[in-house]
Amino acid sequence: MKSEIRIIGFDDCPFDKFNDKEVKIIGTIFRGGKSLDGVVSTIIAIDGIDATEKLSSLIQTTKFRPQLQAILLDGITMGGFNVIDIHVLAKTTNLPVIVVMRNLPDFQKIKNALTKLEMNDRFALMEKAGIPIKHNNIYFQCAAISKDEAKAILSLTTIHADIPEPIRIAHLIAAGITKGESSGDA
Amino acid sequence: MKSEIRIIGFDDCPFDKFNDKEVKIIGTIFRGGKSLDGVVSTIIAIDGIDATEKLSSLIQTTKFRPQLQAILLDGITMGGFNVIDIHVLAKTTNLPVIVVMRNLPDFQKIKNALTKLEMNDRFALMEKAGIPIKHNNIYFQCAAISKDEAKAILSLTTIHADIPEPIRIAHLIAAGITKGESSGDA
Repeated sequence: MKSEIRIIGFDDCPFDKFNDKEVKIIGTIFRGGKSLDGVVSTIIAIDGIDATEKLSSLIQTTKFRPQLQAILLDGITMGGFNVIDIHVLAKTTNLPVIVVMRNLPDFQKIKNALTKLEMNDRFALMEKAGIPIKHNNIYFQCAAISKDEAKAILSLTTIHADIPEPIRIAHLIAAGITKGESSGDA
Repeated sequence: MKSEIRIIGFDDCPFDKFNDKEVKIIGTIFRGGKSLDGVVSTIIAIDGIDATEKLSSLIQTTKFRPQLQAILLDGITMGGFNVIDIHVLAKTTNLPVIVVMRNLPDFQKIKNALTKLEMNDRFALMEKAGIPIKHNNIYFQCAAISKDEAKAILSLTTIHADIPEPIRIAHLIAAGITKGESSGDA
């Protein structure tokens, strides 16, 4: 694998779940784990069902698309319970998708919450993404890529923290532009 | 000079000069030119007079303040003609300030524009910042730091482009969160 492959990483901005209806999603385009080449953004509905389509559209239309070789996500949900169908995202963009989790999600708790909200179909999407795999200090799910290739991309892009740079920086930007200051826990 | 000194770099977001009244300012905190440690933001008035005060307040209150050793600005004006008094900014923050310009500004043209707008006091602030000094492919003005020390900071932080990383990345973020996609000309 080339050390300078272009990877796009996403995170959502913090939001007020009682008052906000939409939330901005930040994407960072990295050359390997070292150089930030670009920043993109889009808007999704909080607890909506448009995250997969919005990310897919953003990736397909960005000028960075020809160079991109993988998509990294900070968790499989954005904007609350807007779940990303990673298999559809991989298929529509023709790119592998890797979902990174700092901790193993409590799936039973999520399932109970989604059942209460009558959103069981979303839990099916989360299950379809596969059982999270441990790699160093994180867990991941993936689509359209082998576990070993996914691990190689994670290792290549993880430089300054437990999580890969494209996601770490997307998180810093999302927090910094929303709250005025990024938290240091990324 | 330590290679990992913390530097904050600022740029303003793109705005619609006919409809917008305020514009977001993005600050990036870098360790040398290599690692982005944090992102901060504030809001200033377009063509207003609050840029110096807003930046000063942001810098003084950020959790990154104890580590900061220099301030980098992408030009001496933000949000149109909101001119930064770099001497006041240096004094109130107790940090050196370096203003980076990709090209030598056409001061006569700026003076004429400000005269028409009855904003001559702002041109005085620009003049007070001193004659721009050429360094590699850019020009700079500075306050509370020697020219040689300023050049050392510029050289340390300039890695992937003609302009220092804290400013390059602030520009990418500002464009990416506003227009949905950052331009590649930074």
